[in-house]
Amino acid sequence: MVPKLTFAFVTVLATFSSVDALWPLPTSLSTGSTALRLTPQFDIQVDVKGAPSDLYEAVARTKTYLWTDKLERLVVGRGSEDATAISNAKYLSSLTISLADSAEVRSISEEAVDELESRDDSYTLSIPETGSDAVLKANSTLGLFRGLTTFSQLFYYYNGEVYTLEAPIQITDKPAYPYRGFMLDTSRNYFPVSDLERTLDAMSWVKINNFHWHVVDSQSFPLQIPGFTDLAEKGAYSASSIYSPSDVAHIISYAAARGIDVIVEIDTPGHTAIISEAHPEYVACAGSTPWASSANEPPAGQLRFTEPVVVNFTADLFTAVSKMFPSKFVSTGGDELNVNCYDQDSVTQGTLNKTGQTLEQALDSFTQATHGALAKAGKTPVVWEEMVLDHNVTLSNDTVVMVWISSENVAAVAQKGFKVVHSASDYFYLDCGAGGWVGSYPAGNSWCDPFKTWQRSYTFDPTANLTADESKLILGGQHLLWTEQSGPENLDPVVWPRAASSAELFWTGPALTNVTTALPRLHDVAFRMRQRGVNAISLQPLWCALRPGVCDLTA
Amino acid sequence: MVPKLTFAFVTVLATFSSVDALWPLPTSLSTGSTALRLTPQFDIQVDVKGAPSDLYEAVARTKTYLWTDKLERLVVGRGSEDATAISNAKYLSSLTISLADSAEVRSISEEAVDELESRDDSYTLSIPETGSDAVLKANSTLGLFRGLTTFSQLFYYYNGEVYTLEAPIQITDKPAYPYRGFMLDTSRNYFPVSDLERTLDAMSWVKINNFHWHVVDSQSFPLQIPGFTDLAEKGAYSASSIYSPSDVAHIISYAAARGIDVIVEIDTPGHTAIISEAHPEYVACAGSTPWASSANEPPAGQLRFTEPVVVNFTADLFTAVSKMFPSKFVSTGGDELNVNCYDQDSVTQGTLNKTGQTLEQALDSFTQATHGALAKAGKTPVVWEEMVLDHNVTLSNDTVVMVWISSENVAAVAQKGFKVVHSASDYFYLDCGAGGWVGSYPAGNSWCDPFKTWQRSYTFDPTANLTADESKLILGGQHLLWTEQSGPENLDPVVWPRAASSAELFWTGPALTNVTTALPRLHDVAFRMRQRGVNAISLQPLWCALRPGVCDLTA
Repeated sequence: MVPKLTFAFVTVLATFSSVDALWPLPTSLSTGSTALRLTPQFDIQVDVKGAPSDLYEAVARTKTYLWTDKLERLVVGRGSEDATAISNAKYLSSLTISLADSAEVRSISEEAVDELESRDDSYTLSIPETGSDAVLKANSTLGLFRGLTTFSQLFYYYNGEVYTLEAPIQITDKPAYPYRGFMLDTSRNYFPVSDLERTLDAMSWVKINNFHWHVVDSQSFPLQIPGFTDLAEKGAYSASSIYSPSDVAHIISYAAARGIDVIVEIDTPGHTAIISEAHPEYVACAGSTPWASSANEPPAGQLRFTEPVVVNFTADLFTAVSKMFPSKFVSTGGDELNVNCYDQDSVTQGTLNKTGQTLEQALDSFTQATHGALAKAGKTPVVWEEMVLDHNVTLSNDTVVMVWISSENVAAVAQKGFKVVHSASDYFYLDCGAGGWVGSYPAGNSWCDPFKTWQRSYTFDPTANLTADESKLILGGQHLLWTEQSGPENLDPVVWPRAASSAELFWTGPALTNVTTALPRLHDVAFRMRQRGVNAISLQPLWCALRPGVCDLTA
Repeated sequence: MVPKLTFAFVTVLATFSSVDALWPLPTSLSTGSTALRLTPQFDIQVDVKGAPSDLYEAVARTKTYLWTDKLERLVVGRGSEDATAISNAKYLSSLTISLADSAEVRSISEEAVDELESRDDSYTLSIPETGSDAVLKANSTLGLFRGLTTFSQLFYYYNGEVYTLEAPIQITDKPAYPYRGFMLDTSRNYFPVSDLERTLDAMSWVKINNFHWHVVDSQSFPLQIPGFTDLAEKGAYSASSIYSPSDVAHIISYAAARGIDVIVEIDTPGHTAIISEAHPEYVACAGSTPWASSANEPPAGQLRFTEPVVVNFTADLFTAVSKMFPSKFVSTGGDELNVNCYDQDSVTQGTLNKTGQTLEQALDSFTQATHGALAKAGKTPVVWEEMVLDHNVTLSNDTVVMVWISSENVAAVAQKGFKVVHSASDYFYLDCGAGGWVGSYPAGNSWCDPFKTWQRSYTFDPTANLTADESKLILGGQHLLWTEQSGPENLDPVVWPRAASSAELFWTGPALTNVTTALPRLHDVAFRMRQRGVNAISLQPLWCALRPGVCDLTA
């Protein structure tokens, strides 16, 4: 997937200090220098016959944000110098949104879970300086939703007025990459549904369109799956730390209405120790000590994939999970398989001896069974890189591979012809750099030191070391939060605004990103998120945030 | 100040998995294995004639915590296995608190701001297994407050019952070091009074007794000082980002009632750029560019300490500030003086030429004037290490020196005979490791990488490389939060529970600390803080927190 950019980046750099706080930056933007303010009766007209309810809801949220963001401009005086311009400004009384004549009218929620590469996020937005109606057009309600998101970022607040200084504004926009994601681990520590809702909202504000939900792992199994309810019953941290089917349906619906597809991951055959609580016979080396001999982190325990009963169980599990999630994608994980665990497991060794299979052959059978179940359910499998690079398993050509160990491994995966989602720990892991978390280890550092700054993620090159053909395999990328040291207490501060950096990189494309001019806009992202109830952190002293460029290294 | 420890650490290691969640660990503790629960009418009897109102308030808060903490034991089942023991448990109906016969009855608030080394935090606490009254005794209301804090940590909650499994409990306790602190910078980013209140509460729960308030710096001047109100009027981030004299009085009173002395810092002569907003003529190289030529961070600007008008202004400022803060200590700062700034400043150079003084001689005069003003006001000066190690200024013998650049500099300060508060960036800086914050610097790392884990701070040796005599100069130490990348959004997660590690180190003393056995108790600190509304973060997956020791490195 090579980014196809229409570049008309006319005035944004010239009017840098007052540029509207768009994030991600549209691929084509031109702005003027005329002030416009919203009339108190400002309305968004939906000129779409049979418009779906989620579009009306998105319009309602946009109108709410316009009036409740109350984000003052990030300059000294916070907009007080704009007072005269505002009081002389013409009024903008409405935005009209409509679909292209040829467009089929479907809901945002339906379009959000379309095949990834067929989703159409494109839109055009025009705000004339005359005060006549603004116009938003798209080929899809998903595109209209992206445009509404952009529209809500165009305005600042001062003294009761909602205004822009930059009319006319002309935007033509579409993403460089189809996949902009965020991954959250809800197993190491549990997050209530309200935290997921807030995170999905924030994701949608920066046009992230995939929520990669690493819902279970060795530490807890919070997902209640019909037919497999004992897994959560015995493996969740508590009865109140479970995502019920109705919670899941709600999260999926909440996400889809915001243009986000929910890709669930049931990591197998590793990272499954907690399944031993319900099915001790399915898990090798469950809780064995020392844990470091058979796992990358405590507790040890991996599915006995050599056993037919486990293969069937896991395939059926994926069939059941596939029914819960409308996404075309389901991740079967596949990372950090610990061979020592199986070497020490008499059940596994007995079966291998009996069948004459190698462990790798058994893993191949297991993978074919689980991926076969996905295929039957109409799903495309997602796996971590080891399934391609470390194991010799049969994978369908459409398998999506997430490269996490190192960005240097992307080329090897692409050389094998698989599609890639950038998820590299050396650029996109939000948990790195906070020290080691295992106990009795005073000198312990984070395995993926140092902390990944937004600047590092933002300046990542998605096609480094790739040929033109290999580059077409890059679907996009995402930030990821593993939660050994995170919970509801620090979710927002760890994630925001950092995760917005990959959102822009993969929407706007690397050709248009600039770490120097991005910072003032990223301040705006953080400040606007706070106004909307997300605890995005300060990237600099407020003194710097109010003086774009002045705290740059060589300023 | 050599720690004098009465060590009777009898059962704590043996009954490790059920030890009461005391933090800091008392210097002498013995526990049994009998269950006791509070009666619903549990009361705390104040057997102190003329007891001050802040003691009654502390008693009321303690009673509230006992019933509202609702902290379940951090074990699998969260206390469900204790149900039988609880239902068979005797009732504890009251705690009686009293002062030694010889004690003068004074308020906690008065005692909290006594001369540091004369504060008496000691107490004894006895909880019999028979269910007869528990007894807390001390020589001071401050000691009673410390004992109440301990008492509130002895109990867990399960199914409506507040209980301990470890009666009888006998505690004799006093701090190893007189200074246990926390420093917060409220200049780089502003914190509302409610954030300071919450932080002071959390500090008091771990027996921190000094709030080092780095209230102003080059970026903003939020402190409204009578007679100098133009500084905040022109230098605060906004009219709503100002600590008024009544705010300050409230914070001091709130802190003192919790056993905490508020040590204000007005950093001079560096870190004063913002004073130029009110008095441009007092500040050299204000806002000069490139900032890196005359400052360690933007904006540049330092007081023209060569000028008599500036000397008088600053001395008068300290006189006025001294009146606002009852503490015996006031910090005049003195770090990171940038000589280039003065070399380039024609006013400074003109005066030096005229007077024939060197810059160092002028700095000495300036320091004598500001410290003279403090002495007149009855205050002891606190300075950063450079005032001792990099400059040749006259300092009174009682000056307290905070060593921040490196813990390796402590010995040099002690060799000069000054008292030391450990504040070293290589152990106690909470902001380290989050990447660089200056703009246009994609590869920028944190100057004090890596992140300082709680384990690193906790295993710090306060008397490393010191002689016995030099060791007596160590007053204690503190964690510090510089807020270039912090604000209200991440205050709690950045600080807690990490800052509790120095609180225990300097209360309990290094001889009794153990990083392996500390972790389960530190989990308890974090969980209890959350129950009380402080967003302390998870140090591990909950799976580990519920299984003490099982996630240790070699477990």
